[in-house]
Amino acid sequence: MAMEVKMMGRETKIVVAVDESEESMYALSWCLNNFSSKNDQNTNTTLILLYVKPPPSAYSSLDAAGYLFSTDAIGAMEKYAKELVHSVMERAEAVYQHSGVKMNVEKKVGTGDAKDVICHTVEKLRADTLVMGSHGYGFFKRTLLGSVSDHCAKNVNCPVVIVKHPKQNRV
Amino acid sequence: MAMEVKMMGRETKIVVAVDESEESMYALSWCLNNFSSKNDQNTNTTLILLYVKPPPSAYSSLDAAGYLFSTDAIGAMEKYAKELVHSVMERAEAVYQHSGVKMNVEKKVGTGDAKDVICHTVEKLRADTLVMGSHGYGFFKRTLLGSVSDHCAKNVNCPVVIVKHPKQNRV
Repeated sequence: MAMEVKMMGRETKIVVAVDESEESMYALSWCLNNFSSKNDQNTNTTLILLYVKPPPSAYSSLDAAGYLFSTDAIGAMEKYAKELVHSVMERAEAVYQHSGVKMNVEKKVGTGDAKDVICHTVEKLRADTLVMGSHGYGFFKRTLLGSVSDHCAKNVNCPVVIVKHPKQNRV
Repeated sequence: MAMEVKMMGRETKIVVAVDESEESMYALSWCLNNFSSKNDQNTNTTLILLYVKPPPSAYSSLDAAGYLFSTDAIGAMEKYAKELVHSVMERAEAVYQHSGVKMNVEKKVGTGDAKDVICHTVEKLRADTLVMGSHGYGFFKRTLLGSVSDHCAKNVNCPVVIVKHPKQNRV
């Protein structure tokens, strides 16, 4: 009986990787609308909103990719990246509030290569599910990253939900 | 108001690609346990169990892969493949019954390259979600197929849930 009570109270952790794309907000919305409310009665569900900032060194590595930026431009990009964190988390919070779903919500901001940080966070938290958009990862995706969702689907141990934005379908 | 009623009655289609692996049964179970019962009240959810048989020509192509089989062996494999369909669908039905979740259940059996058949079926049915295991696709996976889940995640338009069997984690 004690065991049953313990099982009932088990915490379920859902990590949603968010970025400034419409797609990641859609993935969050999909998660809130489709994950079981049955579970909510039995378990303590925590939604972890994870945003990954590129490391400062990423900006200078853009030079190597053929982009030549002045120091001012790099400083401006760093500032922009910091502002994005706030903006993305605010949007994510609004999507959550709008859904009417009740979960514990935590916000985490990581720094580094998105695919590594996401996989590492999922593993560290022993997350039950990872939800993310299908396309790159934000502003820097085209220059720096391959497919983050591909990498995460291969490397994390929990179920991975890859969500495509309907507007981006059939492109 | 009429529109609201229509929206409330919208059919949600979840395709679960099943095969003889433990992993695909776990994916089905995960789907039944984690998909929203909130949606069940608002929509008419249909669970489509999809099994894909390899085409008969697949057996003879095994020869080209360096496996030399007699005609008898090929006949035996065809028989085995037919029996698998029945066995897999029975297991899937049992997983569904055991879950206690109430959905409409449809069973579909396709023939061909699993990744193409799964993507085609999802598109044709205009499915809302595809759920599948992360690893190959059944008995023939090692000789004939690359990663089916990779291909499907890239090619279907709806959200894709890739589920790993816990026992296969950290391998």
